[in-house]
Amino acid sequence: MTTTTVAYAAHTPKAPLERTTIERRDVGEFDVLIDIRFAGICHSDIHQVDEGWDEGIFPMVPGHEIAGIVSAVGTGVTKFRAGDRVGVGCMVDSCRTCDNCRAGNEQYCTGSGMVGTYNDTGRDGLPTHGGYAQTIVVDENYVVRIPEGLSLDVAAPLLCAGITVYSPLRHWGAGPGKKVAILGLGGLGHMAVKIAHALGAEVTVLSQSLRKKDDGLKLGADHYHATSDPRTFEELDGTFDVILSTVSAPLDFGAYLSLLKTDGALVNVGLPEEPISLDLFGIVTGRKAIAGSLIGGIAETQEMLDFCAGHGLGAEIEVIRADQVNEAYRRVLRSDVRYRFVIDTATI
Amino acid sequence: MTTTTVAYAAHTPKAPLERTTIERRDVGEFDVLIDIRFAGICHSDIHQVDEGWDEGIFPMVPGHEIAGIVSAVGTGVTKFRAGDRVGVGCMVDSCRTCDNCRAGNEQYCTGSGMVGTYNDTGRDGLPTHGGYAQTIVVDENYVVRIPEGLSLDVAAPLLCAGITVYSPLRHWGAGPGKKVAILGLGGLGHMAVKIAHALGAEVTVLSQSLRKKDDGLKLGADHYHATSDPRTFEELDGTFDVILSTVSAPLDFGAYLSLLKTDGALVNVGLPEEPISLDLFGIVTGRKAIAGSLIGGIAETQEMLDFCAGHGLGAEIEVIRADQVNEAYRRVLRSDVRYRFVIDTATI
Repeated sequence: MTTTTVAYAAHTPKAPLERTTIERRDVGEFDVLIDIRFAGICHSDIHQVDEGWDEGIFPMVPGHEIAGIVSAVGTGVTKFRAGDRVGVGCMVDSCRTCDNCRAGNEQYCTGSGMVGTYNDTGRDGLPTHGGYAQTIVVDENYVVRIPEGLSLDVAAPLLCAGITVYSPLRHWGAGPGKKVAILGLGGLGHMAVKIAHALGAEVTVLSQSLRKKDDGLKLGADHYHATSDPRTFEELDGTFDVILSTVSAPLDFGAYLSLLKTDGALVNVGLPEEPISLDLFGIVTGRKAIAGSLIGGIAETQEMLDFCAGHGLGAEIEVIRADQVNEAYRRVLRSDVRYRFVIDTATI
Repeated sequence: MTTTTVAYAAHTPKAPLERTTIERRDVGEFDVLIDIRFAGICHSDIHQVDEGWDEGIFPMVPGHEIAGIVSAVGTGVTKFRAGDRVGVGCMVDSCRTCDNCRAGNEQYCTGSGMVGTYNDTGRDGLPTHGGYAQTIVVDENYVVRIPEGLSLDVAAPLLCAGITVYSPLRHWGAGPGKKVAILGLGGLGHMAVKIAHALGAEVTVLSQSLRKKDDGLKLGADHYHATSDPRTFEELDGTFDVILSTVSAPLDFGAYLSLLKTDGALVNVGLPEEPISLDLFGIVTGRKAIAGSLIGGIAETQEMLDFCAGHGLGAEIEVIRADQVNEAYRRVLRSDVRYRFVIDTATI
């Protein structure tokens, strides 16, 4: 059985989002029903509506940065109860039995694969629909708690932008004594600066221009350089332990590899739509690595939320009404947002 | 002051090697004079003669897999004396003061850079010349000891082929419980199989065909698959902790990344002359890395020789006369050697 909820959906690839209704499964034994309060807009929402990476499932309700309040729970639910402040990120299920799932790396599930919060098909056979909606039903194992002290609006973007940068920063050891560069100061990048700074690393922003320099320094960066200035690459040669690339535009990887120390890693969380070109000399000389990272596991997402709450870190946001979502998409595409749009889902 | 020695040199790019004489510096305070007995032929010798990577310095005497006997030492030398069995690999000097040099990673020297055994310019201002010669003069800090029990002929290729694979196998943790694939069964690959097996890893050879399968299994591989067979990629999906690529031909990196487990690394020691094309999806989904590694440090080269001697591991070689070197180059280019040519330098 299903229940109808109101949502914003794209009905065909590249189409504008429109107010519509969708069906959610009824609350099952281990399910949590969430009244969504805020849903962040992630660049990958636009990629998926536009089929930039792969074919999509339509109608598509994007949104995997979800913050809300539990309004009902199934009879078997032990972790949450009505009234709890909760979040849902990029996945709502996985196989739960493969090595990765058991190790808390559900995002790399090698069984059935993780089930995306939207643009996927759930265990119930229904298409999954994301957070641009009034409610969502999610298995309790894929729901995280938003700590008191972290407002739901600034918490929402942490569920994707936050964990996507927190996980690799932790995995590659960002912390005291480490020099970390954040490439790109957008939705992901601004959280990466905050989190890397809070982790104790020396943080440098590498951005196309110095336009957002004041912001970057306020967010916690120690240094700020323009990648359009060739002197940046001379001055910073061999400087960084880790470069976290949050950009999805094609990059001159050789130039960025030259900024790494020996044993440094250029870690990508941005995903160019086209393959990149890479000269292997740049990694062989210096035992460097080009690596990638995809969001984070459920327990790690909870850890990230607790870390952010403990350090008073939320996203920098611009709250919009649901009927502004298409304009917000256009503004995201021209990088005209500081730094994340969040839909007030009460306006749906 | 200099002393003349007989050698085989290419006088111009791509030219055949000819018997000639070259000048070596006289033995300085900290120098070791080595009577070269055997010099391995590395594929990169051909690359450098042919200027496949970069401009060369001519005349060029290749050879950075050198095994011989100390015939004289400078007054300040403490580590070696006449009669010692020694080896010289890919470098004969470095800045000695940068972080990498002090950490024993001289191969990644960020000061003046490591000084190549040939095709480079030494601290003395003379062009460096390699092992296709009767003698060489090297600072004692860049000379290693060849343990008793390891014949000089089978030891020579360890100075490049051996350390080039030993260093990354150790760095990326090849050992018990780890599944390691060796891509390519040539000069480097055959040593990688022997060393990875001796380190306790479960070893798979990935080779274009099954032509050398019997050899591979005898060398220590547990499994052997042909990369020309599409079933290889189906069967081995998500199998390996580490893939060590010893090939310098352009590869379908996406296909090899799919053979890695989560957190796996595709480590390159082969160097394609052209940039590779890489779809970042292949590294982001599974937190994988494409990494590189360049030979190894001096202390690590000694460690490798001791390890090989302890496990009875030498290279599989075909000893040739110096006047066969040009024919040997042609055979290397068509992969017609099992698995390393070694010049008996008494024939120079």
